[in-house]
Amino acid sequence: MVAMKKLKTIAISSNLPKKKIDEIVNQCCEILENLGLKIMLTEDMKSLSISKTHKIHSDKSILQKADLLISIGGDGTILSCARRFGKDNLPILGINLGKVGFLADLSTTDITYQLKEIIDGKYLKDNRFLLRAKIQGEDHARVALNEIVIHSGAVAQMIEYEVFLDDSFLYRQKGDGLIINTPTGSTAYSMSGGGPIVHPSVNAITLLPMFPHSLSSNPLLVSHKSKIKIKIIDCKMKTMLSFDSHNTLPVKEGDVIFIDKNPGLLTLIHPKDHDFFSSCRDKLGWSIGIDSKSIRDS
Amino acid sequence: MVAMKKLKTIAISSNLPKKKIDEIVNQCCEILENLGLKIMLTEDMKSLSISKTHKIHSDKSILQKADLLISIGGDGTILSCARRFGKDNLPILGINLGKVGFLADLSTTDITYQLKEIIDGKYLKDNRFLLRAKIQGEDHARVALNEIVIHSGAVAQMIEYEVFLDDSFLYRQKGDGLIINTPTGSTAYSMSGGGPIVHPSVNAITLLPMFPHSLSSNPLLVSHKSKIKIKIIDCKMKTMLSFDSHNTLPVKEGDVIFIDKNPGLLTLIHPKDHDFFSSCRDKLGWSIGIDSKSIRDS
Amino acid sequence: MVAMKKLKTIAISSNLPKKKIDEIVNQCCEILENLGLKIMLTEDMKSLSISKTHKIHSDKSILQKADLLISIGGDGTILSCARRFGKDNLPILGINLGKVGFLADLSTTDITYQLKEIIDGKYLKDNRFLLRAKIQGEDHARVALNEIVIHSGAVAQMIEYEVFLDDSFLYRQKGDGLIINTPTGSTAYSMSGGGPIVHPSVNAITLLPMFPHSLSSNPLLVSHKSKIKIKIIDCKMKTMLSFDSHNTLPVKEGDVIFIDKNPGLLTLIHPKDHDFFSSCRDKLGWSIGIDSKSIRDS
Amino acid sequence: MVAMKKLKTIAISSNLPKKKIDEIVNQCCEILENLGLKIMLTEDMKSLSISKTHKIHSDKSILQKADLLISIGGDGTILSCARRFGKDNLPILGINLGKVGFLADLSTTDITYQLKEIIDGKYLKDNRFLLRAKIQGEDHARVALNEIVIHSGAVAQMIEYEVFLDDSFLYRQKGDGLIINTPTGSTAYSMSGGGPIVHPSVNAITLLPMFPHSLSSNPLLVSHKSKIKIKIIDCKMKTMLSFDSHNTLPVKEGDVIFIDKNPGLLTLIHPKDHDFFSSCRDKLGWSIGIDSKSIRDS
Repeated sequence: MVAMKKLKTIAISSNLPKKKIDEIVNQCCEILENLGLKIMLTEDMKSLSISKTHKIHSDKSILQKADLLISIGGDGTILSCARRFGKDNLPILGINLGKVGFLADLSTTDITYQLKEIIDGKYLKDNRFLLRAKIQGEDHARVALNEIVIHSGAVAQMIEYEVFLDDSFLYRQKGDGLIINTPTGSTAYSMSGGGPIVHPSVNAITLLPMFPHSLSSNPLLVSHKSKIKIKIIDCKMKTMLSFDSHNTLPVKEGDVIFIDKNPGLLTLIHPKDHDFFSSCRDKLGWSIGIDSKSIRDS
Repeated sequence: MVAMKKLKTIAISSNLPKKKIDEIVNQCCEILENLGLKIMLTEDMKSLSISKTHKIHSDKSILQKADLLISIGGDGTILSCARRFGKDNLPILGINLGKVGFLADLSTTDITYQLKEIIDGKYLKDNRFLLRAKIQGEDHARVALNEIVIHSGAVAQMIEYEVFLDDSFLYRQKGDGLIINTPTGSTAYSMSGGGPIVHPSVNAITLLPMFPHSLSSNPLLVSHKSKIKIKIIDCKMKTMLSFDSHNTLPVKEGDVIFIDKNPGLLTLIHPKDHDFFSSCRDKLGWSIGIDSKSIRDS
Repeated sequence: MVAMKKLKTIAISSNLPKKKIDEIVNQCCEILENLGLKIMLTEDMKSLSISKTHKIHSDKSILQKADLLISIGGDGTILSCARRFGKDNLPILGINLGKVGFLADLSTTDITYQLKEIIDGKYLKDNRFLLRAKIQGEDHARVALNEIVIHSGAVAQMIEYEVFLDDSFLYRQKGDGLIINTPTGSTAYSMSGGGPIVHPSVNAITLLPMFPHSLSSNPLLVSHKSKIKIKIIDCKMKTMLSFDSHNTLPVKEGDVIFIDKNPGLLTLIHPKDHDFFSSCRDKLGWSIGIDSKSIRDS
Repeated sequence: MVAMKKLKTIAISSNLPKKKIDEIVNQCCEILENLGLKIMLTEDMKSLSISKTHKIHSDKSILQKADLLISIGGDGTILSCARRFGKDNLPILGINLGKVGFLADLSTTDITYQLKEIIDGKYLKDNRFLLRAKIQGEDHARVALNEIVIHSGAVAQMIEYEVFLDDSFLYRQKGDGLIINTPTGSTAYSMSGGGPIVHPSVNAITLLPMFPHSLSSNPLLVSHKSKIKIKIIDCKMKTMLSFDSHNTLPVKEGDVIFIDKNPGLLTLIHPKDHDFFSSCRDKLGWSIGIDSKSIRDS
């Protein structure tokens, strides 16, 4: 899946504090300029020193003109960029300032070479779908790249809800809440709750009950085309809908929530040697228990 | 997905003892004859009284001439028919003699009406993929509808293996074994091991380690197009490959096993009111914990 | 463990609304009077019609004079009574108004006979330990019969903490929170999170991480004599300590929380035919999957 | 728990091949002789060069005369020594040739100093209980330090059984089998199956169903005083009882198996700085996910 499109206009975004990113942003811009590229800064770059020499653009303008958005930070920064730009088809490349992540896999080491390769068209495109949710009666849907969570907002405070798939009744359940996640989110919060790891190429949505009050609680995977409807039968004050654990929306008894795949896909840009399973082995300890660690010794 | 193809020639198969099925087979044949259909009996019908009036046919002949195979028994009977006929595109309808199953959902109650509806073209087609496995150096691949299992053949007797996906290294692991299952198999053995439930419309293969000797053991879902390769690094005598827990094949150190989707799909025929989630609710206790049972009481 | 102590003074408590319990309280008092017993009402009985003919007593007075407290409601009502009276050694008998619970096992059917039996000394005593927690620097410890939970107070909002047992370092962990539960609590919230069921006769405390950010998250059982110390390394605003999911206490970064067994035990009074496993079979579906339900069908 | 008993006669045992242990056995014996101790070799030392200068003794003689048995190998070697000598109260010290284990925690580094310390009485005693099982009608009970497993002997081949505790009915279940393990076994096979980690000071037996055919399958912990009775209702040919995954015994339909705590305890001898949780942190990855590994990145 090596793609060839020539990238010309590059937007840069980050939600990290100036102290952490000022230098790396300067460095990136210098490299990009040397490669003859046009640079657009997002509004969150205002406080950086780069904003003295380069122009800040509105999100709308960036979505119209940029060929690529570079997200500087970690997986959390990409999640935020994905909800803001990625859902509307602007490809995203993540430069990771800390540990290499699942989404942001360009390290700051040897960044000149890596950026040059990508600008030269030597990159992989990786399409990810997002989920969107809308509460009945509201105009506006919100999106999440990892997961949407319905949660009581308090420990061991149960909510009761009914789930429908394409208008067919699925189940009625009590519990702390429900995680609805994409394959991208399967290595995030869902995994901490025992959910399965889902390769990005699998077109499925995972439903994972949180502390369910029921005898059966295996995670359920349904088609990415499913129209999910959740009726809140019973809940307390603080119940809410959460998007990638960042934005939240209050939910009340009687609310009906519609969740489905967002029409626009996110395109992640990876260096050519990207390997999803390599991240898994590294970050999920898939190779541990064999060489260095031993559970059942003899 | 209501289909309209007119069914004319119907094969009947069962692997249950004569005592259990003689009467129901007679009844089915009578209904089918009254509907003007041609009946073909499989070779396992030889001992039944129906074989005095109807002809036994070879599997080959049935695959050439029959429009539908009726499997009489339970889900286990359908599994067997699927491996024998279904993988080569003969649609299968299951009449369930016991509890309604996940695969065989026609009950013996009101069977005249139900069969007439289906023969009239009022049915649902439900395509399921099978897995096939071949040990390197052997000519012959074998298929499974639910799952293929690699297992040490003994309790707490570890095997060590490496898994590759489309020739990329996935992981090296020790443990009792590995379950590789289809969505159809997700409500069977895999589920007993904590695997996720996967709707038949999701095109994914589940990999579930059995009693893994590792820190990380979440189930993994990969695309149905994946070419899975498993190298047996270390194992004892009784290690084997199992197909739907019925057929087994010995496996030895150094063996390389190729597993992928079988080219031919199984087509299950369901009555028009069939609902996958209804089976789940009924059989997996999805509705329990709400009305009649209570885990966290207040 | 049939005990013989003659019960003479009986306190009655409930936290349910008047409408639900007025009649059953009257009925209980009549039975107890007919048996020649002295009745004490707790302060939460003020609004009931029984308060016109019987005296309300302070908790202190009840703890001094009553031989038994009858809790009317469900398991939640007993939890509340246990924290209020049971921890100071007043035996508790639960009359269950709804489904038979794990703690409150006297049904309202045939209540005259059942109460008479118990007053006659035909009962079982069942000692349960409680947990208490104290934040360093505070005077006051609080108790829980089921579980103490440290939680971030928000979905997927991680806290980081270190756990020490008898001053030995156990582990440092990130996650949504940590459940510390008694055997009594093992069939409550802990079980919804996958924790083991612990028979009341096992003297162990269970530590169960909630959505842990780590590779290893098996529940851990330690001795009931353990002195548990938890240092909050990193947390956000809404982090809190919760007792039986009812009372909560805010927790902040740097707080040190001491958790151990409460000195006073709770004594539950059961009818002679009480059987812990019978409740498990009934409420946890231990008998399901055999007769009526089937996961792996053949 | 620092103990002071002066050790005088030391037995040495190993089940590893000569090549691996000849040298270390010579070294141990030299150290012990220098400390003025009497050495007894077990019968499995026959082929070693040390047997030319030191006498081989029967197990019976060793049980009568030795104050301590040194097991050379790994946790598997200790398991074997525990079943042979430890159950009859001969204390065991494990020298670990490979990775430090849960049971054998003396490394070969600095062995002179470590052995001297222990012989000087500077050691910790750690009592562990074993389980024993007897099939009704047989004379002989067998013991296990980690776990007793009842298993169908084949993948996905269900057995059906009833479990009783102290003659009270617990449950009837179908599945691949049942693990009954001690706290010592909680970090072994049981853990691979998702069982809880149980500190050695907790007096509990864990019951963990293997691939259960039921809706509810949380592990269950019962008192170490429990008399467990298992009736085999339905099983195939290869069903068996396994002891620490080493010895096996065939089991057939109708068999009744009695399992309880072995009267004699195993006494493990540890160096003074032994820490159970340190092994857990090291071997179970309790510290992973914090510093070096990250599941939920932001």
